[in-house]
Amino acid sequence: MAKAGLTEREIIGVLTRRFDSKPKLPLGFDEDVAAFPTSPRGLVVLKTDMLVGHTDVPPGMTLGQAARKAVVATASDFAAKGVQPEGLLISLGLVPPVRLSTVNEIVAGLEKGAREYHCRIIGGDTSETDDLVIDCIGFGFSAAGRILRRDGAKPGDVVAVTGDFGRTTAGLQILLGKKKRWPHRFSKLISSVLLPSAKLEAGLKLAESGFVNGSIDSSDGLAWSLHEIARLSRVNIVLETIPVAPDVKMFAREQGLVPEELALFGGEEYELVLAIKRDGFANVRRRIPSLQKIGNVTIGSGNVIAPFGRSFRKIEPRGYEHFS
Amino acid sequence: MAKAGLTEREIIGVLTRRFDSKPKLPLGFDEDVAAFPTSPRGLVVLKTDMLVGHTDVPPGMTLGQAARKAVVATASDFAAKGVQPEGLLISLGLVPPVRLSTVNEIVAGLEKGAREYHCRIIGGDTSETDDLVIDCIGFGFSAAGRILRRDGAKPGDVVAVTGDFGRTTAGLQILLGKKKRWPHRFSKLISSVLLPSAKLEAGLKLAESGFVNGSIDSSDGLAWSLHEIARLSRVNIVLETIPVAPDVKMFAREQGLVPEELALFGGEEYELVLAIKRDGFANVRRRIPSLQKIGNVTIGSGNVIAPFGRSFRKIEPRGYEHFS
Repeated sequence: MAKAGLTEREIIGVLTRRFDSKPKLPLGFDEDVAAFPTSPRGLVVLKTDMLVGHTDVPPGMTLGQAARKAVVATASDFAAKGVQPEGLLISLGLVPPVRLSTVNEIVAGLEKGAREYHCRIIGGDTSETDDLVIDCIGFGFSAAGRILRRDGAKPGDVVAVTGDFGRTTAGLQILLGKKKRWPHRFSKLISSVLLPSAKLEAGLKLAESGFVNGSIDSSDGLAWSLHEIARLSRVNIVLETIPVAPDVKMFAREQGLVPEELALFGGEEYELVLAIKRDGFANVRRRIPSLQKIGNVTIGSGNVIAPFGRSFRKIEPRGYEHFS
Repeated sequence: MAKAGLTEREIIGVLTRRFDSKPKLPLGFDEDVAAFPTSPRGLVVLKTDMLVGHTDVPPGMTLGQAARKAVVATASDFAAKGVQPEGLLISLGLVPPVRLSTVNEIVAGLEKGAREYHCRIIGGDTSETDDLVIDCIGFGFSAAGRILRRDGAKPGDVVAVTGDFGRTTAGLQILLGKKKRWPHRFSKLISSVLLPSAKLEAGLKLAESGFVNGSIDSSDGLAWSLHEIARLSRVNIVLETIPVAPDVKMFAREQGLVPEELALFGGEEYELVLAIKRDGFANVRRRIPSLQKIGNVTIGSGNVIAPFGRSFRKIEPRGYEHFS
């Protein structure tokens, strides 16, 4: 029997082992972004995020929305590091024959995204491909000690998130389903997929506050993000609550699904997942009203524990591996 | 009848018109690389170059060679600007199921390329695609006035190149042909395709010399590159000779082809095409022995003129648009 192929994470594992060698980089391959020193105290921060038609563009999403989403995904990684993206390069892979309207729609979506996150598109490349490819490369600058990391969470920290979870998983199920119409009360589920947004403003405020010990975006799902902080910081995370969005609870009830599953094991949800110093949490909470506490960091070795009904259970390090 | 799709250059034209707006960037969209100020005098220089399996990987090229070529293409753009690439980010699109040996072969090719050009792979991303995609993103740093440009050629400048032309076009014809074996005397034609090299060392010396007014790499073909310098600098270029490689002449004779056509309208040939101040040429030539004069810059409006037999003809701005 043929051996199954490597998963996305196994591939990244191989790249990490091969490239993440000496001399030590300011940020490892495990991070949301890459960084390189420009001076003893300055860093250039870089990120590439490739959007591919058949895995990242669900039915119902326009080309313009797909292009904007490519920018959002990259901006979200900058948000997680608390760094303003200054500029973008775009590598476009387009399926021939390429119509002018296609290019214009993509350009409009890219411009919309760039405007929202106050960055500028400064270059790019285009190639002929079998499927839409939009590789969005962002860069920005940061002081070496200011950048938010995944690996600094400490026992006693408050675990917090910038918003509720589960909408993209629910919205994707709706879009992938056969039904043409859905009740208006589920419109936020759909728009969470088609018009996601990166929490850049929150990320910049978080970096400014000086109270954040661990930060990651939730593009691979809440459970995966919590595990990354726990694993890289060598701590446990004990959740008090799973932040399920109210309309996700409603959707889950109607569909006979477990709402917590939708919230934990979704993906492409661009919230920030944070470990914040306990004595700074009230301060940070005032600056970012959407912030909600969901648990605590404890001594441990990379586990994430969450309440299910009356009992606590370990959460698997399972994440989002595309919807194809 | 359906209108044919846009060409690669028409697509880039759309992107340029939409994104290349105010405030003025240090380098426009027409350049080999993008640049962004890091300080009043410093620039971060960035380039993305997407390699796609079915258009950029000819028969006979291994995965490792393809990965190395992705690095060479990016390094060549840095060579043309006289900037050392410091680091690379790699966005990989792989076709499932992905085998470990595939990833290892690609990684080895990327490492080989990075080592050759003294830069380091500092990050990346991986996605699931229908065809191999290797987006190689390079970055480096330069002083604002030091970077070599396409648009500075002046009447009186010497037009020079770092090597002979035509090998990749000939080599590609051999690889795309049905024949299994070719005489040993054509081995350099084949290796020019499978193992190209960027003229980074020459580019760095050229930037250091201070004598270069115009510079571009020849990845889109010699004719196209000359035209880009002539068009952006608003000058004419008058060639004295077309630098056809000796083995290309031999190949053309045997195949009944026009050697000058192979040299002018090829592509993926990573030489540098230069306009050099007349009084500095001898100096530059001593530093870079492979440099050869092929013509002169004259007053004009973007034409390229070349000798064919006893007459001179305008060369079309025709380039390389992939081999698919």
